[in-house]
Amino acid sequence: MEKLRVLGVGAHPDDLEILCGGTLARYAALGHEVIMAHLLNGDKGHYEMDPRELARLRKKEAGEAGGVIGAEVVGLDLPDAQLFSDLETRKLVMDLIREARPDVIITHAPGDYTSDHTVTSELVCDASFFAGAPLFRTERKAVDKVAPVFFMDTVVGMGCLPTEYVDISETFQKKMEMLGCHRSQLEWLKAHDSIDVLEFVETTARFRGLQCGVKYAEGFCQFEVWGRKVPARLLP
Amino acid sequence: MEKLRVLGVGAHPDDLEILCGGTLARYAALGHEVIMAHLLNGDKGHYEMDPRELARLRKKEAGEAGGVIGAEVVGLDLPDAQLFSDLETRKLVMDLIREARPDVIITHAPGDYTSDHTVTSELVCDASFFAGAPLFRTERKAVDKVAPVFFMDTVVGMGCLPTEYVDISETFQKKMEMLGCHRSQLEWLKAHDSIDVLEFVETTARFRGLQCGVKYAEGFCQFEVWGRKVPARLLP
Amino acid sequence: MEKLRVLGVGAHPDDLEILCGGTLARYAALGHEVIMAHLLNGDKGHYEMDPRELARLRKKEAGEAGGVIGAEVVGLDLPDAQLFSDLETRKLVMDLIREARPDVIITHAPGDYTSDHTVTSELVCDASFFAGAPLFRTERKAVDKVAPVFFMDTVVGMGCLPTEYVDISETFQKKMEMLGCHRSQLEWLKAHDSIDVLEFVETTARFRGLQCGVKYAEGFCQFEVWGRKVPARLLP
Amino acid sequence: MEKLRVLGVGAHPDDLEILCGGTLARYAALGHEVIMAHLLNGDKGHYEMDPRELARLRKKEAGEAGGVIGAEVVGLDLPDAQLFSDLETRKLVMDLIREARPDVIITHAPGDYTSDHTVTSELVCDASFFAGAPLFRTERKAVDKVAPVFFMDTVVGMGCLPTEYVDISETFQKKMEMLGCHRSQLEWLKAHDSIDVLEFVETTARFRGLQCGVKYAEGFCQFEVWGRKVPARLLP
Amino acid sequence: MEKLRVLGVGAHPDDLEILCGGTLARYAALGHEVIMAHLLNGDKGHYEMDPRELARLRKKEAGEAGGVIGAEVVGLDLPDAQLFSDLETRKLVMDLIREARPDVIITHAPGDYTSDHTVTSELVCDASFFAGAPLFRTERKAVDKVAPVFFMDTVVGMGCLPTEYVDISETFQKKMEMLGCHRSQLEWLKAHDSIDVLEFVETTARFRGLQCGVKYAEGFCQFEVWGRKVPARLLP
Amino acid sequence: MEKLRVLGVGAHPDDLEILCGGTLARYAALGHEVIMAHLLNGDKGHYEMDPRELARLRKKEAGEAGGVIGAEVVGLDLPDAQLFSDLETRKLVMDLIREARPDVIITHAPGDYTSDHTVTSELVCDASFFAGAPLFRTERKAVDKVAPVFFMDTVVGMGCLPTEYVDISETFQKKMEMLGCHRSQLEWLKAHDSIDVLEFVETTARFRGLQCGVKYAEGFCQFEVWGRKVPARLLP
Repeated sequence: MEKLRVLGVGAHPDDLEILCGGTLARYAALGHEVIMAHLLNGDKGHYEMDPRELARLRKKEAGEAGGVIGAEVVGLDLPDAQLFSDLETRKLVMDLIREARPDVIITHAPGDYTSDHTVTSELVCDASFFAGAPLFRTERKAVDKVAPVFFMDTVVGMGCLPTEYVDISETFQKKMEMLGCHRSQLEWLKAHDSIDVLEFVETTARFRGLQCGVKYAEGFCQFEVWGRKVPARLLP
Repeated sequence: MEKLRVLGVGAHPDDLEILCGGTLARYAALGHEVIMAHLLNGDKGHYEMDPRELARLRKKEAGEAGGVIGAEVVGLDLPDAQLFSDLETRKLVMDLIREARPDVIITHAPGDYTSDHTVTSELVCDASFFAGAPLFRTERKAVDKVAPVFFMDTVVGMGCLPTEYVDISETFQKKMEMLGCHRSQLEWLKAHDSIDVLEFVETTARFRGLQCGVKYAEGFCQFEVWGRKVPARLLP
Repeated sequence: MEKLRVLGVGAHPDDLEILCGGTLARYAALGHEVIMAHLLNGDKGHYEMDPRELARLRKKEAGEAGGVIGAEVVGLDLPDAQLFSDLETRKLVMDLIREARPDVIITHAPGDYTSDHTVTSELVCDASFFAGAPLFRTERKAVDKVAPVFFMDTVVGMGCLPTEYVDISETFQKKMEMLGCHRSQLEWLKAHDSIDVLEFVETTARFRGLQCGVKYAEGFCQFEVWGRKVPARLLP
Repeated sequence: MEKLRVLGVGAHPDDLEILCGGTLARYAALGHEVIMAHLLNGDKGHYEMDPRELARLRKKEAGEAGGVIGAEVVGLDLPDAQLFSDLETRKLVMDLIREARPDVIITHAPGDYTSDHTVTSELVCDASFFAGAPLFRTERKAVDKVAPVFFMDTVVGMGCLPTEYVDISETFQKKMEMLGCHRSQLEWLKAHDSIDVLEFVETTARFRGLQCGVKYAEGFCQFEVWGRKVPARLLP
Repeated sequence: MEKLRVLGVGAHPDDLEILCGGTLARYAALGHEVIMAHLLNGDKGHYEMDPRELARLRKKEAGEAGGVIGAEVVGLDLPDAQLFSDLETRKLVMDLIREARPDVIITHAPGDYTSDHTVTSELVCDASFFAGAPLFRTERKAVDKVAPVFFMDTVVGMGCLPTEYVDISETFQKKMEMLGCHRSQLEWLKAHDSIDVLEFVETTARFRGLQCGVKYAEGFCQFEVWGRKVPARLLP
Repeated sequence: MEKLRVLGVGAHPDDLEILCGGTLARYAALGHEVIMAHLLNGDKGHYEMDPRELARLRKKEAGEAGGVIGAEVVGLDLPDAQLFSDLETRKLVMDLIREARPDVIITHAPGDYTSDHTVTSELVCDASFFAGAPLFRTERKAVDKVAPVFFMDTVVGMGCLPTEYVDISETFQKKMEMLGCHRSQLEWLKAHDSIDVLEFVETTARFRGLQCGVKYAEGFCQFEVWGRKVPARLLP
């Protein structure tokens, strides 16, 4: 088996765990290299904590979560809620990708519920193409090939009909363990919005599982443009 | 409040319970008249039982389920797996509708997983229009108006993005109680296909609930053609 | 009945009147609080007038139009034709929303004919989410909840299939009266582009009425993402 | 200019007038040959008239309407409300097409509001292909080529986004004159359903006109499959 | 590797070769069992030959083509151009499937250019579900599981955006060799319609190859309903 | 025949040739005025050349290519890979359009594979509307009318179902000749990515030709919003 370099890029420190943690765990279990990146530092994901302190805490939580499956964790440390697709940010994401040299990229769906997610998606699609242009000079060397991009499910699946499913029955516990590392979020969302993140993630995984005939699954779509589609499955 | 006559038309004796039982229970609780119809007698929904015996048993189960919410239960007693949109069946469904005189009709989605469901959907859409044509003479008198049609979710939501949701948190237990009456199906599907119907129905209701911010929900789309759309909500 | 705070956000000073004036009039007639906002001052909506003078005139016209239904009128006073989704404008729209504390928001459709409309739509969707994040500090206090967003019809309905309709037969005259306040536009469009705005608005309202079986109607779609959908109708 | 043979196929005797009368009038005015066919005899389009008498009356009305633009009028005389896609009906429609030898065909949209319209659409699409197969022997000789098919707007445009428009400003009066010949329908729909057909047809034509920048228009989509698309415009 | 039973079901004797011959050749080369079925005998696919003689000739050609990759070839011997979804034909297709016991089914897309193709698609989807119902008794025993269905590209790709691609660079010559066995068609279409089938098949395969970055490819979509989707790739 | 001013706006110096060269050649052959614009200077379309030298070379190549059909060639000289929709660039594109005074505009599809293409599309749609607003003052005078916009095919047709086709059989050689002028790209893409641009362009033109029944064709969609649709064909 060819060993793949798999790059997940979420907006906030816990997005990958929620939306594709079981898939990343499967890649890891199969011996592939997994890099978990988040563009934002999560500094507004709370009701009353100091943003800087919150960002520090969430960085620690993200590191722990990645550790559960032996993934490398990278954060761009940009502030929440003010992500835009501009040249400076494009270059940051290009360098993230040039550093990671991924064979497969996983990121947010273009139709998700907040611009933090949709702009992440747009930045990753754009930057992953330009990462392959040698004359677009940045801090790092151009990658040799432009990687296919898979879009994760939207949060609670709104507006999303997955075209690809990954069976995560075997790694579902790992996913929940990773998610459990994000204590600040589990507590805040429960206290402030009465959202039980663990329960809603389990329901979603179970629902996607029902759709493809397994216990638990995660759903994906693909970025369907020139140069990104391959006639073989890259998902585990 | 105007008292509505609500007609649900499923293919098999347990389809309404699975896909809109909570909604029908809400209509009933609000004092509306609920009629639960199934076109087929369910005679092939088992592994080894005698079809005629099975049909008898399922008729009894359907009657019990309707009884839970005080709904009238009607079955056309057609055999499973051989439903087609032909003139004879159209007239049967027209008479079902002319007898029920519904203000609202609920039936299967046109893109569901088996022709029993999709042909039911087509028959109900077609017949409910012709039911209003006085010169199309059948056993019963034409209805005064053509009723709006809502399509239920598909089974496990494949290919379906609901545009309308009904909060069934209050009636979820009623839904499960109705479903529990269909003992032949719960047992067969568990034994033969390892499908736990109660669990899969709960997961779906919970997932649809997450999508619209309540505990449990059922999702619907609408038949969007001339004469069927009204500028007010007819769902409870 | 719960008294709602309804916020309409158009691009130019007359857009709400054209696209949802009858609906706002109904909300107002039902005793709800209506706030009519426009992001742009309309300073390029003419052939030869001085932009600053035009902006002053249109502000006056918008105030009169709002007065017809007793709505509060707010304008951000940004210049036409140069609206972009950037951090500064996002904050302005966030404060507009934080000030209005809406239960329902109505804005332009994402596929309308000019970027002034589509960027308004994007800004409102994004800002209304971030308005609920306490740690995103602006001039005003975070709102307690993220409001559902309805998209108005596009101009002359291009590319738009409404999923919701509002019967405006009773308030159609109010809508036309509001529209009549925008004299600068009625005159200019007639003189310069031979467009009779009153006629085209009546035709559209009548066409949407035919689609849902009433005299006059306005059509809407909804922003279908996590946290915005509720299992009950919020439109009048 | 090449002289075209244009075949319109509606379900009921007045459908072509309502949905593409202005376009047919333009073809006629340009010197093309227009054949107006209806599969059904309209025998159920009334509240209390005797079906056979009604069919006779409507045949006369259709003849008069066609006469307004000098079109040939053909009716298959099938009863309303029981049209299905079966071999016998396919052959009837094949012979209609083999007789007409059309260069262009216009028929109902596949998503219209009643099966009489949608089955007509299906029959025309299917039969127009088989009409070109010499070994499919019927009463008449195979046509030399398979004609492109345009779908008319749906009634009041539900679910329909036209991709092609025809300016009927010049022939709008002809269209209304043709429509006026269907007295039985104008009276019945007004008396029974309070529908003013003339007004609703004018509103639709005006709305489609607004969408493409002319006084009155009719909208169309095309049957987009192999062998039907040509790289030139066939609509007038 | 699990040895799969792969069932292709085309309408006419040469459809599978045109639309998925390279894919079937890959399955065969990998050691899977390939069954090539055609519902129709192709008796109208010519300009002047006697239908019965033509059917005999095409049966021979289909047999030769299947022989190229060692596939079993089955024909239901129904006449061209009169295929409908009725109970009798459903049972024939059910028995075809019950005999083949497929793990994967490949058939026509639901939106292809002729009813022979679209009805084949519908029959296969319906029959493959009912084939698994033991109480639906036919000549053969029910299958143990309901197989996933893949839809082939439409002819020249009209209206089709493949979601899955199969690299057929290695088997493209086999595909052309199979196609070459259908001499009656190659000659007729060239003589009668000036269609060079070999060239148009090569162009399509090359175009689909460009889309997924290989020399030659075939495109597919999937039947996305309950019980048919699996979280793993079944295409070679 | 009215003489049209046709403006093509591509991102890079060779995009128009690849995606609509045959169509522009037909316009030119019919005596219309053709202006070929590219926003970017192509300075990153190579593996190792100096960007400034590359830009100079590509400007020369673009000029030669335009010369083949007698088109005027205009370049905005913006650098590759950093195009965004901001006010400054909008004004540049507005002036390009105000200078060209087009009757028809052709540009990239909004769903193409790289942001250079999609942002070009967005800029052209936005700027072509504002170009008609006299009070939006730039270096040049406002145009009298807002021109319809056609979107070219995407590269290798990913995600694109053309609604309009242009027969380029007669001008295909001109298209290839124009393309041949872009030597730097033909060489680079062959050497670096093993892409034979001439072959892939011919395959695409042939595939689009098969779809509409001619030897070679180019496919287009249209920008379907208010004020852009006309009830007549503007494509040659």
